[in-house]
Amino acid sequence: GVSKKILVIPGDGIGQEVTAWGKKVLETIAANYKHTFTFDEGIMGHVAIEATGDPLPDGTLEKARQSDAILFGAIGHAKYDNDPTLKVRPEQGLLKIRKELGLYANLRPIKLFDDLLQASSIKPEILQGADILFFRELTGDVYFGEKKRSEDRTTASDLMIYHQYEVERIARKAYEAARTRKKKLCSVDKANVLEASRLWRETVQAVAKEYPDVETEHMFIDNAAMQLIKDPKRFDVVVTGNLFGDILTDEASQIAGSMGMLASASVGDSVGFYEPIHGSAHDIAGKGIANPLASILSAALLLDISFGLKEESQRVIRAVDATLKQGYRTMDIANKHTPNEFVLGTDAMGAQVLKNLN
Amino acid sequence: GVSKKILVIPGDGIGQEVTAWGKKVLETIAANYKHTFTFDEGIMGHVAIEATGDPLPDGTLEKARQSDAILFGAIGHAKYDNDPTLKVRPEQGLLKIRKELGLYANLRPIKLFDDLLQASSIKPEILQGADILFFRELTGDVYFGEKKRSEDRTTASDLMIYHQYEVERIARKAYEAARTRKKKLCSVDKANVLEASRLWRETVQAVAKEYPDVETEHMFIDNAAMQLIKDPKRFDVVVTGNLFGDILTDEASQIAGSMGMLASASVGDSVGFYEPIHGSAHDIAGKGIANPLASILSAALLLDISFGLKEESQRVIRAVDATLKQGYRTMDIANKHTPNEFVLGTDAMGAQVLKNLN
Ligand SMILES: CC(C)[C@H](C(=O)O)[C@@H](O)C(=O)O
Ligand SMILES: CC(C)[C@H](C(=O)O)[C@@H](O)C(=O)O
Repeated sequence: GVSKKILVIPGDGIGQEVTAWGKKVLETIAANYKHTFTFDEGIMGHVAIEATGDPLPDGTLEKARQSDAILFGAIGHAKYDNDPTLKVRPEQGLLKIRKELGLYANLRPIKLFDDLLQASSIKPEILQGADILFFRELTGDVYFGEKKRSEDRTTASDLMIYHQYEVERIARKAYEAARTRKKKLCSVDKANVLEASRLWRETVQAVAKEYPDVETEHMFIDNAAMQLIKDPKRFDVVVTGNLFGDILTDEASQIAGSMGMLASASVGDSVGFYEPIHGSAHDIAGKGIANPLASILSAALLLDISFGLKEESQRVIRAVDATLKQGYRTMDIANKHTPNEFVLGTDAMGAQVLKNLN
Repeated sequence: GVSKKILVIPGDGIGQEVTAWGKKVLETIAANYKHTFTFDEGIMGHVAIEATGDPLPDGTLEKARQSDAILFGAIGHAKYDNDPTLKVRPEQGLLKIRKELGLYANLRPIKLFDDLLQASSIKPEILQGADILFFRELTGDVYFGEKKRSEDRTTASDLMIYHQYEVERIARKAYEAARTRKKKLCSVDKANVLEASRLWRETVQAVAKEYPDVETEHMFIDNAAMQLIKDPKRFDVVVTGNLFGDILTDEASQIAGSMGMLASASVGDSVGFYEPIHGSAHDIAGKGIANPLASILSAALLLDISFGLKEESQRVIRAVDATLKQGYRTMDIANKHTPNEFVLGTDAMGAQVLKNLN
């Protein structure tokens, strides 16, 4: 067995409830496969502001640097959403840790579990067979460009900026992945309007020459947002910038039935960072009804990508699949028109997956 | 009858084919209702670059200023999409005319014609009853902020910038419209990350106080991109910035069955500008298969908003509805699973609508 240190950062809102299950799944895998996973915990986001005044305390960042992988929950709180004038904000913690750890590539696999074919608002015949891997650039773009507010506070700006090397490295990662899949890559930008997008497109065009075996397509973001719903099967690997990736992957969650099903891996220079795509969901936080599967599937990605434990990772995915086959659903993936579904809360759902792991 | 001057700008690609039908519909309405519409034509986009070197020649802008309304087609050409280094680009024409004419409010109504319930990739039960009116801000944001490219060409940026007055005026237009509808307004931004979005949210919050009878909701763009597909019926009026509006309305076309069905009105300081949401679609340009209904519905918007001819506008919409009821479809809205559909080309479809107008 291997010996690894995992940092768990539950964060805000439903992050607390669901991450507990991602962690339990890792513990169970360790026990079953005789690995030694040592867990530590860190705070980040609103909970960290409340405790220390800082959305990403130095202690958490230190622990992150010393871990072999990080399992994260979610970030955000209604208080800040309702008051845009607050200076210290939970999201700053997440943006800072992404930047500090050099997590420039955010992988978001979109795939529907067979038993959820009816859970989506999209027609089954449109969804069946869709399988998309998004590469979202994560440490550049308008997220990290200079922010300004005029003294009289009536003008505000953010700089959307990309450097060639940032586009190159994410494009390479995406092309490498495309080689192991259907050998199709779609790069999404707004090159008909934005200079940053024109650099993006030029750079991807140059990198494409190194991968003549992969078919490259360039698409404008507005068209991509449309095609994703119209014909999701046309996509294999999609690579795009930070902002467009944020929007497209949330939208793409409808292809997988629910946001509550989607995991993501952020990788780059060193340690890998795993998190559900869903946010803190204050409206349902604390109610025990959140879907723990995205956190559990984030744990599966962690096992695969950071630890190279492919069999263990597949074991987790099979346990999720089995749970869905048995008819167990959380609220977000329930379909009132389908008989033989049992709607469970977070803990009961997590417990079913654990059972199926044993 | 009224006497009005209409400038027609077919633009690029399928713009040429479909705008001919928007114009014919206006001519027919003029004849039937004894109005005098005088038509002039202008060039813009790739065709204008080819003819004059300028995507928006002064002559076209001059004609635009002197007209009572403008019917536009589409803009863009594959040559420029494939070569991001070209300096003079078709889209600059469209952006410039929007700015020069002060067209800051882009209205995009999203509503499904009953007979197209099966044409969408979204389930009928999710769509039925959806009726959204988008207000996209059209003369600010990252579209018009300063663009830079470093001398060595390895860094590129665009400034995402908003001024309070820009947000105020579009918000007011959106609230006024909400008052005449279901009294619900959703403002979309990314205030958890972007300073420009925080200004946007603060400003909408302030304007909201003037409209206590309208229910206001603020939503992040990533969540909005998801909710639009998950539950389109939750929206009534949506107001958002230029970039997010571009993305969301193209996505929302799937709610209306096809991009080929959607018209838009750009209004502001003076003359109104009407155009389909779809682009130049080089892949099908010149084949005679483009859907002319978005241009025809743009003509309907023109009659209503710029000329106040509500009855005439409704007459056009009813003619489109009748054409769909008769089973006529262009390729983009055909559904091979539905019997009694007749798939027509652009001209045959346009001719059917004219017939139904008489
Ligand atoms: C919480 C927020 C800052 C974050 C983002 O926009 O990156 C989230 O939406 C995500 O996608 O991880
Ligand atoms: C052609 C392009 C510049 C334009 C835009 O992005 O505004 C188009 O997509 C639109 O939505 O009108």
